[in-house]
Amino acid sequence: MFFFWRKVTLPIIGDNHEMKIDKETPEFALINQYFKQLTTPRQDVVLGIGDDAALLQVPEESLLVVSVDTMVSGVHFFEDVAADALGHKALAVNLSDMAAMGAEPSWATLALTLPEVDEQWIADFCRGFAGLANRYNVSLIGGDTTRGPLSVTVQIHGVVPKHQAMRRAGARVGDDIYVTGTLGDAALGLRVLESAQALTADQQTLVNRLERPQPRVEAGLALRQLAHSAIDLSDGLLADLGHILTQSGVGASLQLEQLPLSAELISVMGDDMDWSRVVSAGDDYELCLTLPAACREEVAAVARQLSLPITRIGSIEAEPGLRCFDKPGKPWHSPQLGFDHFRAG
Amino acid sequence: MFFFWRKVTLPIIGDNHEMKIDKETPEFALINQYFKQLTTPRQDVVLGIGDDAALLQVPEESLLVVSVDTMVSGVHFFEDVAADALGHKALAVNLSDMAAMGAEPSWATLALTLPEVDEQWIADFCRGFAGLANRYNVSLIGGDTTRGPLSVTVQIHGVVPKHQAMRRAGARVGDDIYVTGTLGDAALGLRVLESAQALTADQQTLVNRLERPQPRVEAGLALRQLAHSAIDLSDGLLADLGHILTQSGVGASLQLEQLPLSAELISVMGDDMDWSRVVSAGDDYELCLTLPAACREEVAAVARQLSLPITRIGSIEAEPGLRCFDKPGKPWHSPQLGFDHFRAG
Repeated sequence: MFFFWRKVTLPIIGDNHEMKIDKETPEFALINQYFKQLTTPRQDVVLGIGDDAALLQVPEESLLVVSVDTMVSGVHFFEDVAADALGHKALAVNLSDMAAMGAEPSWATLALTLPEVDEQWIADFCRGFAGLANRYNVSLIGGDTTRGPLSVTVQIHGVVPKHQAMRRAGARVGDDIYVTGTLGDAALGLRVLESAQALTADQQTLVNRLERPQPRVEAGLALRQLAHSAIDLSDGLLADLGHILTQSGVGASLQLEQLPLSAELISVMGDDMDWSRVVSAGDDYELCLTLPAACREEVAAVARQLSLPITRIGSIEAEPGLRCFDKPGKPWHSPQLGFDHFRAG
Repeated sequence: MFFFWRKVTLPIIGDNHEMKIDKETPEFALINQYFKQLTTPRQDVVLGIGDDAALLQVPEESLLVVSVDTMVSGVHFFEDVAADALGHKALAVNLSDMAAMGAEPSWATLALTLPEVDEQWIADFCRGFAGLANRYNVSLIGGDTTRGPLSVTVQIHGVVPKHQAMRRAGARVGDDIYVTGTLGDAALGLRVLESAQALTADQQTLVNRLERPQPRVEAGLALRQLAHSAIDLSDGLLADLGHILTQSGVGASLQLEQLPLSAELISVMGDDMDWSRVVSAGDDYELCLTLPAACREEVAAVARQLSLPITRIGSIEAEPGLRCFDKPGKPWHSPQLGFDHFRAG
């Protein structure tokens, strides 16, 4: 495990010179400097960056919670995305997985592949990463910096008391279905980015939702002892709720009119409003949870406490499959999405 | 956390079509099939692949040990390397970090970025990975598969009883310095690959040492309660022993004639033999350890038990810096390496 360019022993293709990069050059000292800023001190980090591996103390009676996500330039983000937004998002999507499990995030590793050493870019990336890391007291405990096409792999580690983790499998017939925040903003933000030149304030808000998602860690922690199941919304409500239904062996009905939409989305979409777009929109990084109906007051209290909308949008049913209604009692099918999305898992 | 191509929401640059990849296509079911083979059942995996994160049980009185390494095509390996060799090496270099800490490897995650879905390639990669994973009872507990330029990031998790981990900082004056196995084979294997057409048996052995390093996990476990310090040899003996010296605040002298060399290296190098090449050769993934002189018999017993050479090559001294001797009492300096390598840390 290294925090500098690894010594490169392969020759550049078609060239006889070996591309050996000296770790001791000022450039690499500089990289180390930036990354060191991210090593928030924590008592449970027995040994952090600087050895062959990190040594960590997991609290007794807790489980270790682990998730990893890779973001590749030109695939998951535009090549010219702001480096601080990328640093933020690379950690945010992983924190969102912790939120979905009800875990408290603790430690991260960062595997960063860079085409070149651009000091300003690295400083910006680290600033974006550090903003979230500091907020959640996440300490960078290791990583690897390599030369190559730009990509970022973050692995997050958290802890959760035994038997309190939220899983996808666990939804029960009669559960209410909730989502945090608002849906569809990030996907619309992407469309805005692709088409607009100068952004209106509403459009900029949507782009921010795409580029700087806020992981719902506090909501996961507050609801983990109440919820029967949870998932984070990365691929869209239908796809992600579908995982809960399949893994729990249940079905559901959704009231589309209840879906929480931001004022900015309603304003920008205007007459173009289409449920298909909202229910299949990815990248929201909100939580979808199922809870027993007896918990409604507690859910409302958590929402107030966190100043975060937590909206009831449907209910879990015994009949397999997912049934959507755009008005009470009026079934809705999306021609764009096809029937497959609604079939029993 | 996903084990299929993540839904891609960015358009291909210069193209208006969105590159959305359906997770339900047979190709992706296939990928999942291969990866599922790597999920060795372990009692401490409470929840493995298939949720937002994995849930793991770290034994009480143990520390969690974490390391991550990325390998990028064209930088750390040739683009046409055999996929099973790549699968082996991606796990091996991480297991080597566990070995250096004296940790027992337990769980791995795999972030794999692929330019395309090539069933045979994936099957071969998984076979190479599985060989080592099964040998060390390592279970794949998560990962992310993305489309992009070929690269592999493996993160390994192990456990070690409290206070038994070997660190770089810990070498004491009077310690013997040992290395496992033989040195310089992998680097010579790389030179062979670059120049030779048809390989002799000796050359093939050296190439195998480059492409399929054997992590010294058993040696790390056997010596962790005796050793004062340890590191794995990824960047070459001088560089890596240098980390031990710097972090321990000590110096050392090395007897070059004691360095363990393979018969194949001696045969292929012939008259070209040069200590500079051996002491700066990377990619060996052997261990370098320091132990009190009182442990010599125990070290010899471990070497016999593991059928692995563990060779005493020098000793830790109070005077900072690294002094090499090619005959007893005759100092050696490498014109190629320059004096910097030998300065006090």
